[in-house]
Amino acid sequence: MDGFGLVQVYTGEGKGKTTAALGLALRATGHGFRVYIIQFMKGRINYGELESAKRIRNLTIVQFGRAEFVDKQKPEKIDIDYARRGLDHAKEIVASGKYDMVVLDEINVALEFKLIPLEEVLQLIKNKPKNVELILTGRYAHPKILELADLVSEIKEVKHPYQKGIQGRRGIEY
Amino acid sequence: MDGFGLVQVYTGEGKGKTTAALGLALRATGHGFRVYIIQFMKGRINYGELESAKRIRNLTIVQFGRAEFVDKQKPEKIDIDYARRGLDHAKEIVASGKYDMVVLDEINVALEFKLIPLEEVLQLIKNKPKNVELILTGRYAHPKILELADLVSEIKEVKHPYQKGIQGRRGIEY
Repeated sequence: MDGFGLVQVYTGEGKGKTTAALGLALRATGHGFRVYIIQFMKGRINYGELESAKRIRNLTIVQFGRAEFVDKQKPEKIDIDYARRGLDHAKEIVASGKYDMVVLDEINVALEFKLIPLEEVLQLIKNKPKNVELILTGRYAHPKILELADLVSEIKEVKHPYQKGIQGRRGIEY
Repeated sequence: MDGFGLVQVYTGEGKGKTTAALGLALRATGHGFRVYIIQFMKGRINYGELESAKRIRNLTIVQFGRAEFVDKQKPEKIDIDYARRGLDHAKEIVASGKYDMVVLDEINVALEFKLIPLEEVLQLIKNKPKNVELILTGRYAHPKILELADLVSEIKEVKHPYQKGIQGRRGIEY
């Protein structure tokens, strides 16, 4: 970014958190900025954005998770391992200085599910190079994350079509 | 889309409405869907998304507006003309059946500023082909638009960095 980068959080129950981050990424790459997206708790089901990303210069998306549902009460070891590796990777990428924007997609949920330690994420935010724009998404954003953030958008679900039996449509939700 | 398309609205004061729509567009094109974005009240200042769009297959973005600020109390004729042409173009594009997703970016603001008639937008929504996913963005979404929508996300501004004197950063906001 042009000399400084902020910490942005997209949280809340409504639709549009990951998509907002994707839009930010698309816009930033349009200006020639280098963007790195790390998706927590997501497997290859989200191939819409992966397919698009391949065709966009300066945009990288990697996923640390699997398509399966994570049990909040009792997450499996594989889910914790994935999240752990995602966080380690995030630290490297943010610190590398090679990227202008880093998106930690659904990291708030990984924290809420206690797959990764809050303290390490807070440290990652505090230690980020000045020029890196850092985007954190996912519902349940922790108050301490919000405290560190410069910009917080909370997306409220005003109306949702579940009542029509419409859910998880290809090309829209994933 | 796969047989049916919904009407989605992204509104509210917070950041992320246009970016959410861009993200939806990026994801949809990743699945091979054809996406058309019409931006109201925006001129070439938003070149980040324009530049990126050029490089994405099946994604078209056109702007009907200018970089200058529109006076809500007394919009200039050129602003009304732009919005009028944008709406006519939107009707054609939606009705053409050539696009799986059509984004009418900031159309809610164009309505709030009375640049275009509400009734025509309501008709456009009601008459859309079944398979078209229609996305309307912008704060001030009219209650009648919300009534017709299947999915409404309201983005609340929880925290904003204006207090730090940070505004309109290249690669982030445009």
